[in-house]
Amino acid sequence: MNTSTNWWEAPAASIDQAAHSAAVARQGVLTKPPGALGRLESVAIQLAGLQGREKPEINRIEIVVYAADHGVVEEGVSAFPQVVTYEMVKNFARGGAAINVLARSLGANLAVVNLGTVVTPDELPGVTNRVIAAGSANFSKTAAMSESQFEVAMEVGRDMVDQGLARDMQLFIGGEMGIGNTTSAAAMGCAFLGVEPGEMAGPGTGLDAGGVSHKAHVIERALKLHAEALNSPAAVLRILGGFEIAALAGSYIRCAQAGVPVLVDGFISTSAALCATRLCAGCADWLLYSHASAEPGHAGLLRALGAEPLLDLGMRLGEGSGAAVAVALLRQACALHNEMATFAEAGVSEA
Amino acid sequence: MNTSTNWWEAPAASIDQAAHSAAVARQGVLTKPPGALGRLESVAIQLAGLQGREKPEINRIEIVVYAADHGVVEEGVSAFPQVVTYEMVKNFARGGAAINVLARSLGANLAVVNLGTVVTPDELPGVTNRVIAAGSANFSKTAAMSESQFEVAMEVGRDMVDQGLARDMQLFIGGEMGIGNTTSAAAMGCAFLGVEPGEMAGPGTGLDAGGVSHKAHVIERALKLHAEALNSPAAVLRILGGFEIAALAGSYIRCAQAGVPVLVDGFISTSAALCATRLCAGCADWLLYSHASAEPGHAGLLRALGAEPLLDLGMRLGEGSGAAVAVALLRQACALHNEMATFAEAGVSEA
Repeated sequence: MNTSTNWWEAPAASIDQAAHSAAVARQGVLTKPPGALGRLESVAIQLAGLQGREKPEINRIEIVVYAADHGVVEEGVSAFPQVVTYEMVKNFARGGAAINVLARSLGANLAVVNLGTVVTPDELPGVTNRVIAAGSANFSKTAAMSESQFEVAMEVGRDMVDQGLARDMQLFIGGEMGIGNTTSAAAMGCAFLGVEPGEMAGPGTGLDAGGVSHKAHVIERALKLHAEALNSPAAVLRILGGFEIAALAGSYIRCAQAGVPVLVDGFISTSAALCATRLCAGCADWLLYSHASAEPGHAGLLRALGAEPLLDLGMRLGEGSGAAVAVALLRQACALHNEMATFAEAGVSEA
Repeated sequence: MNTSTNWWEAPAASIDQAAHSAAVARQGVLTKPPGALGRLESVAIQLAGLQGREKPEINRIEIVVYAADHGVVEEGVSAFPQVVTYEMVKNFARGGAAINVLARSLGANLAVVNLGTVVTPDELPGVTNRVIAAGSANFSKTAAMSESQFEVAMEVGRDMVDQGLARDMQLFIGGEMGIGNTTSAAAMGCAFLGVEPGEMAGPGTGLDAGGVSHKAHVIERALKLHAEALNSPAAVLRILGGFEIAALAGSYIRCAQAGVPVLVDGFISTSAALCATRLCAGCADWLLYSHASAEPGHAGLLRALGAEPLLDLGMRLGEGSGAAVAVALLRQACALHNEMATFAEAGVSEA
């Protein structure tokens, strides 16, 4: 690919320093001891700078769940059968999955995109079929995606964000469903951070210790096979990732370029975020981290990003569920920031 | 006082084991890997057992903020002037404080009770005056409360819960406002846990290191003065606590006796909770812990209670604010538990 013309290398939007400063000043005069609302203060200030308004708000939320299968599952790296990816797409379509429940409770717009499952998809309500192939290739034997497949996956992520921009979204959440995708995310983490597979491979949906060890071994083989080819962030994502992970990275980058804050979910999403920050200058500013996953490799990815997630609830579901749960904290941070009285308004003495 | 007749020593209600078991079974068949929702699973199960229904809900919430002044403030233990307690009561009445914003966003019923401030209270909308005295006594010189004052404070806490029971509340949150009350809570923590004041005293609303050291010294003097008298949980609360802390303890106990779950706020509230669990058998079952406060003594109180708070956002405001923020997690836990499809309903394969 010709890197000089890749859309994802255009820089991210800038933070609005005036709105950020106004929000800092406002927090300093609200009727509470300075800093007493902790992270709820800093996140309100951060959102003010990102949204370019002293009083930020999180009303219009777009959640996009990307689904795809992974060829590496034939190596026996998942506790669930591969058919579950498409079964869960049908569950999304019927409204029965965790992300459906959460999106309803938030009043968020939820879209589901099937990028390629081993089951040939039907038309389903609320599901967009953008099938690239019947799953990515087995990355322990060959690259997960061809260059053109990779570019299409990134473009799907970009296009879904463009749909949200047309609805004037104030926050974007990406989710994923793909049996085997913790193996991809762990392999990407190893390639980006230079750590051993044993540090990144975890139980995913429920492997036992032997299963985790086997998964690490599969990743180790893949890293050796592709050692020379893993020479850029895009190569890492293309060779070790998956359609849904590339789409997430494309979405995150498009949000950053368009100036919309992103609330990143868990382990898979954070592997996409790490890649996005290495593909697009300034992208990191636009990514907020929702929760610390129970998947053990997540901590290392978060450290590499300097990320401090808002929640630590032992969640490890994906679908964007952890990010959807954390939306409540962003909303409460905004409500407190926007609606609390100042010392002067309330006639309250300062320290 | 005659311990055989104290209302607060009547045991707590029992957990509904059938509802608890039904909720455990339901979590096991929802369309997600077992345990993948982490704490959101366990808290839904816990609420099911407490509310006696397989599908718990948190719709009707009562928040009661107890305000009172503390004589120990004359020792110079707070960064804010004592007049702020009543100024904040007026801010509550006008709807400008953090807890007002949060209660509105939750649709919770908010009551404010003035148990005794140094400023003689006016009639204020939404504020109940149950004045015991113009603040508790300086516990570094004498007991904070007389026995009759202590009993009245406990009864006010009980009576406010009874009002919530009449509205069929599903969750109770207690909050507090009282300049100087981290000094009371720290002293109580020392008495209950046998730790040094240096381990429990913290900056509160914003003391510097010298101020914290002085605060610890004031507590140390008080613990020596009252050493012999601090011979029961009730004595610790009466001698070192304050009107609002006793009211919180009374509320928690009444909730436990009536079978209503409580979401405990931060440092002050947890000191009341620790006392409540030592006064009333079984009370601990009914107390959920919302957040880890930035006030350093909180961690020790939580450890003593075996409590694992849901949030850790660096909050240290009081008013019930941390608990109000955590309500969103309880609601999402209930929504996921109640509304997600089962494997059978969705036709999804299991592991």
